[in-house]
Amino acid sequence: MKEVFKYDIAIIGSGPAGLSAAIYAARGGLKPIVFERGVFGGQITVTQEVENYPGFHKTLTGSELMEEMRKHADKFGAEICEEEVKGIGMQGLCKIVETNKKIYHAKTLIIATGAHPRKLNVPGEDKFSGKGVSYCATCDGFFYKDKIVAVVGGGDSAVEEAMFLTRFAKKVYVIHRRDELRAVQIIQDRAFANPKIEFIWNSEIQEIFGRDFVESITIFNKSENKHRDIKVDGIFAYVGILPNNELIESRVALDEQGFALVDESMHTNIPGIYAAGDIVSKKLRQVITAASDGATAAWSAEKWITINQEDENTDLKTCELPK
Amino acid sequence: MKEVFKYDIAIIGSGPAGLSAAIYAARGGLKPIVFERGVFGGQITVTQEVENYPGFHKTLTGSELMEEMRKHADKFGAEICEEEVKGIGMQGLCKIVETNKKIYHAKTLIIATGAHPRKLNVPGEDKFSGKGVSYCATCDGFFYKDKIVAVVGGGDSAVEEAMFLTRFAKKVYVIHRRDELRAVQIIQDRAFANPKIEFIWNSEIQEIFGRDFVESITIFNKSENKHRDIKVDGIFAYVGILPNNELIESRVALDEQGFALVDESMHTNIPGIYAAGDIVSKKLRQVITAASDGATAAWSAEKWITINQEDENTDLKTCELPK
Repeated sequence: MKEVFKYDIAIIGSGPAGLSAAIYAARGGLKPIVFERGVFGGQITVTQEVENYPGFHKTLTGSELMEEMRKHADKFGAEICEEEVKGIGMQGLCKIVETNKKIYHAKTLIIATGAHPRKLNVPGEDKFSGKGVSYCATCDGFFYKDKIVAVVGGGDSAVEEAMFLTRFAKKVYVIHRRDELRAVQIIQDRAFANPKIEFIWNSEIQEIFGRDFVESITIFNKSENKHRDIKVDGIFAYVGILPNNELIESRVALDEQGFALVDESMHTNIPGIYAAGDIVSKKLRQVITAASDGATAAWSAEKWITINQEDENTDLKTCELPK
Repeated sequence: MKEVFKYDIAIIGSGPAGLSAAIYAARGGLKPIVFERGVFGGQITVTQEVENYPGFHKTLTGSELMEEMRKHADKFGAEICEEEVKGIGMQGLCKIVETNKKIYHAKTLIIATGAHPRKLNVPGEDKFSGKGVSYCATCDGFFYKDKIVAVVGGGDSAVEEAMFLTRFAKKVYVIHRRDELRAVQIIQDRAFANPKIEFIWNSEIQEIFGRDFVESITIFNKSENKHRDIKVDGIFAYVGILPNNELIESRVALDEQGFALVDESMHTNIPGIYAAGDIVSKKLRQVITAASDGATAAWSAEKWITINQEDENTDLKTCELPK
């Protein structure tokens, strides 16, 4: 039988949401553990320049910002565990987390596993990621003043972000594989009326070229069966964002896209299970919104533990920390 | 006729919510203005030690943190205006802000005027504010390890925070002016079962004493007509938090306590008017949650402007910036 380790809060994911939850939990007198399977710090660590986390006015890399958050969690004694969570179970109200190495019991669980953009899967995409290839106009639009950019996609997000990018770029191509948009009509009307936006229909990017930074793309028009090269300084891919929900999809209520549904306490439909950060069904996915979610989830989890652990009808006591 | 100044977003309040909104708006290619009537930085500036804004692991004062956020807003060119807003009006979809000096037009408005705790109004309260007198257990509980504290109040917040404080303090008095709690029954049950909590009924604090830091309080029991001195290291006042809603109470939909009701975009019931930070009806009021609100409100305002400003049926064009 595997040894069992006991915590107040098990946090799955070490991005801004997970670490913020760990800071609030540990400083709030609870014993949290943060599980991280791969690269510490989450998706933001692939970002070269973060300049919109309020208070950090000197531009830093995503890794540097997350290192500061890790030091913050360390300061209050939050435990960080580099094991991959394989499954989540429940025994009554007690939560069971099984990793590739051990079994952990926790009174509450915060799911902060994040999300990731769907990739274009074309040559050059990985090479130029962060060097002209972006998946977030809110994050990176500012860097494209008077430049030429291409947005890939035809849904609400793609078209909204194309319009947002016209605040900076001198020209915005919207490259869509169909001959009509999926975006709602009013957004389409605004985009069609915008003189900086040019739509390229029935087309897909075939390859991305450049030296150190993106310089051009080859696109293929399916209906005309023609290739064409376009000079661009940046590419914003809006072909979907995918929740990292493998651990919870059979258990937690999700929206149509697979993001976790939560109430204003960040509580999911399962008692004592919270979600925070990009995994949550919400409008704006940024470091600051993720960190806010994490703080709220940890604060809520503390209240939940206080209310539930003395209840005679639950077996939450089996999750009790050793005295 | 007063001269009119035109902006994309008028932000009322310069705390974490207002400055975060300014950072996101200015970096998002919009022209924002932040109005601040009194002390720059909002309520957090009275705090001596902020150690739970994720990423800032070195303890700093509230004023220092807000100075960093101000530099951040300055970096992207957000305008900050030290004028007191006297009234808010609308002309169609265009928002009118009148200060003690000028009139401003803006396409959107973000209300970030904050909230403030109801005070005990007893001698010593102001002198020891931040030196033993606190209005936020989530913020300051950590500083009271193995100390004796008193919580004043009898509602859900007072009792929940008293239980939270037992994670740190060796003894928690709950001083309530009535002989029963207003908190919901299950919270009462948990609190009564907690051996660290002692209830002092029918009583009010009369005075707070100490040298540099709180050392004791005098309480008066109304039903027994008796005074009594108690040694305490800290006092947490939970007798109400009051929204700074004077500018919006006649216009924006509010909850029963007077906090602004918003949707997930931070949009109020009035088209193009957003709320962010402590003024919002929500669970957890912290710097991190306020900053998140501000970012979301600015992001949403940009989308709203894009959709609405080209609409022939609105007069939002009268808010257009000079070319």
